[in-house]
Amino acid sequence: MRDFLPFEVCKRNYVIGIIKEVYESYGFEPLETPAVENIETLTGKYGEEGNQLIFKILKRGEKLGESLNEKDLADLALRYDLTVPLARVVANYKNELPKFFKRYQIQPVWRADRPARGRFREFYQCDADAVGSSSMIVEAELCAAVSEILNKLGFNDFLLRINHRDVLRGLLDAVKIEQEKQSDALVALDKLDKIGKDGVLKEFAQREINENAGVELLDLFAALETSGNTDSITRLREFIGDQGNRSLDNLSQILELTNLENIKIDASLARGLSYYTGAIFEINVPDLAGSLGGGGRYDGLIGMFGKEQIPACGFSLGLERILVVMEERGMFPAELSDNSADVLVTVWNEETISESLKLAGELRKENLRVLVYPETDKLGKQFKYAGQINVPFVCVLGETELADNKVTLKNMRTGEQETLLREEIAERIK
Amino acid sequence: MRDFLPFEVCKRNYVIGIIKEVYESYGFEPLETPAVENIETLTGKYGEEGNQLIFKILKRGEKLGESLNEKDLADLALRYDLTVPLARVVANYKNELPKFFKRYQIQPVWRADRPARGRFREFYQCDADAVGSSSMIVEAELCAAVSEILNKLGFNDFLLRINHRDVLRGLLDAVKIEQEKQSDALVALDKLDKIGKDGVLKEFAQREINENAGVELLDLFAALETSGNTDSITRLREFIGDQGNRSLDNLSQILELTNLENIKIDASLARGLSYYTGAIFEINVPDLAGSLGGGGRYDGLIGMFGKEQIPACGFSLGLERILVVMEERGMFPAELSDNSADVLVTVWNEETISESLKLAGELRKENLRVLVYPETDKLGKQFKYAGQINVPFVCVLGETELADNKVTLKNMRTGEQETLLREEIAERIK
Repeated sequence: MRDFLPFEVCKRNYVIGIIKEVYESYGFEPLETPAVENIETLTGKYGEEGNQLIFKILKRGEKLGESLNEKDLADLALRYDLTVPLARVVANYKNELPKFFKRYQIQPVWRADRPARGRFREFYQCDADAVGSSSMIVEAELCAAVSEILNKLGFNDFLLRINHRDVLRGLLDAVKIEQEKQSDALVALDKLDKIGKDGVLKEFAQREINENAGVELLDLFAALETSGNTDSITRLREFIGDQGNRSLDNLSQILELTNLENIKIDASLARGLSYYTGAIFEINVPDLAGSLGGGGRYDGLIGMFGKEQIPACGFSLGLERILVVMEERGMFPAELSDNSADVLVTVWNEETISESLKLAGELRKENLRVLVYPETDKLGKQFKYAGQINVPFVCVLGETELADNKVTLKNMRTGEQETLLREEIAERIK
Repeated sequence: MRDFLPFEVCKRNYVIGIIKEVYESYGFEPLETPAVENIETLTGKYGEEGNQLIFKILKRGEKLGESLNEKDLADLALRYDLTVPLARVVANYKNELPKFFKRYQIQPVWRADRPARGRFREFYQCDADAVGSSSMIVEAELCAAVSEILNKLGFNDFLLRINHRDVLRGLLDAVKIEQEKQSDALVALDKLDKIGKDGVLKEFAQREINENAGVELLDLFAALETSGNTDSITRLREFIGDQGNRSLDNLSQILELTNLENIKIDASLARGLSYYTGAIFEINVPDLAGSLGGGGRYDGLIGMFGKEQIPACGFSLGLERILVVMEERGMFPAELSDNSADVLVTVWNEETISESLKLAGELRKENLRVLVYPETDKLGKQFKYAGQINVPFVCVLGETELADNKVTLKNMRTGEQETLLREEIAERIK
């Protein structure tokens, strides 16, 4: 977990600002949920591995029993993602929310992971979800929104890969992998990027899954890798047969509606989280292992918190990863590295402090960010400090200036110095 | 802990926006720290009661020993305030920060309190702190900044009370309360607002503190209540004697430098937190028990995390309390209750979805917030929905409109409807 010093907060806020702006232009509304959830809200939603990565909060004093079982020691847990809290909120506040609820949420989540390079135990997710409709308009708009965000941030080489949980199921059925082995097979296939073909086949062998099935699938994926989307859909229809009609129709409608260039069907895309039921997405750039974001349709999750099944689909952007790539590529606008203040007002002596504060107040009224040097040090020391913190202007309000109702203004970039009427200062700085 | 639905987030962001703007105009820079701290960073900083209110995070699997002692069960804890994390950051990153570091921080903190009316276990603090100077310029600027924030939010009846830890100590010495009883006496005096004079005297008796001392102090407080600040300082100088010179000089300099009207010396103000060493502040409004914010000087805290003692002073505004009062008084601007989108684009049929999405994209380029109705329902149903969510404009893109490259725009407020060229729509909505 990390501290963010001012220049880092500034970069984070720049990215968050663009994400918010685009989400809002698509009609997503902001939602915030607490960092802490009841433990039973979270358990069983993220798969086996996920369960173990949930940070649990110790019960207090009298509530602590005599047992050392984790279940008896904790009743609260830290938020693990933003999707499950959304599902809980939709089930709880159904009557207060519109029928088609579009929300965005930009908040930290926590995972009790072993910290590896570029991964953190506290990180921000930037989610947009649309609740209440099964239409592919939802998927298309989500893909368009995240693409627009990445474009606005300056990414022009990302690839949005899409797949469908039922396509995956259809493929596994087609190569005759038994039902009870299918999730094992998916876990292995999901690692294709990382462990390669041989690695996947090895895992198939270890899990006693028919290796021919593995070879058949990997050959298909290799063939699809170089084929266009229309071609991919045709081949998948042939491979899966009728069982794949609905899901492949979904995918081809998403492609048609988004009208994006850098979107590609990838039948090997699996996504780890267990709650997905339909289309799934992931966004990658060449220079980052792992994704910038991902998402999918989860029509069964909200029903786990209420009586009604309500369809939903969402996309989550990973703020930390976006920042890592932008940092490495130098994608931040130059003006972001700017300093914290427009002007430093110096202090002449004990007697004139009030006047310095008054001048600062006047300049703040003109929307300038103003620092007052906090001590009556020698003027040279105050100027030296101004240089160190890189503030562009310094005001001197000495006895002569005060007597004449004037201020000496120094431009720290050019070294120029001029004595002006107090009321002229703000205008000159601007 | 609470969920914040969109209209609530909107109000929170309005208040946070003003707080940020004012803090930045005073040259405070943003800092963010993780929600989770090492447990030893937090323990021993907040006094006995505070210690017990820290949320502790359960160690994981193999790290869990066999002991049921809380100390062995948890190594991490949730942030309890924003001051201790700041002190840790200043000690850790000393060389990366300017000599006079002014930071603001607006983040949630967590306390394992029993939830009472209007109090929450997760709540936001909005802190500004100035590190590195012992000068009263710091105190004066902090008081000016928070006053400006409250003024900008529309508060005109708040009172900023100030005191000094050494004034309190001097008073207790003057009435001859022994050193070892002084913190007990302060705890009792701190409750004056809540339990009244008789209550305080009762507590004095229970804690075996000389009751005459209590009567003497309470009489002094009563006398000071109606006297002006200059008068108060004179009386306190007389009461305390030489021991009070430095602290009373501090207070009178703060009064002189702030030049605020609604600031008052209150020698009974104690503030609970144990880390304060100098001036202390609290802001109250008549219709709220408890304060809108408070703060003070803590010259010893940063030294607890590093080798060097670094002076610091800060002010913390309580977002939730500000919101409660603003809600009760109806202080939010009317335009905040606005809806999530400027226009809803309807969908005519399956074949025209792409065109509706395209139109939405065009309008978003013109900086409008645009919803696309996500299903091919009957037009009447789509209009009904537009009415329910209170969107001001609806676009219809039917077959006739498409053929003519036009769009029908309905103003939902007036009921007026007109058919315009596509490129005219955005302008007309604005």
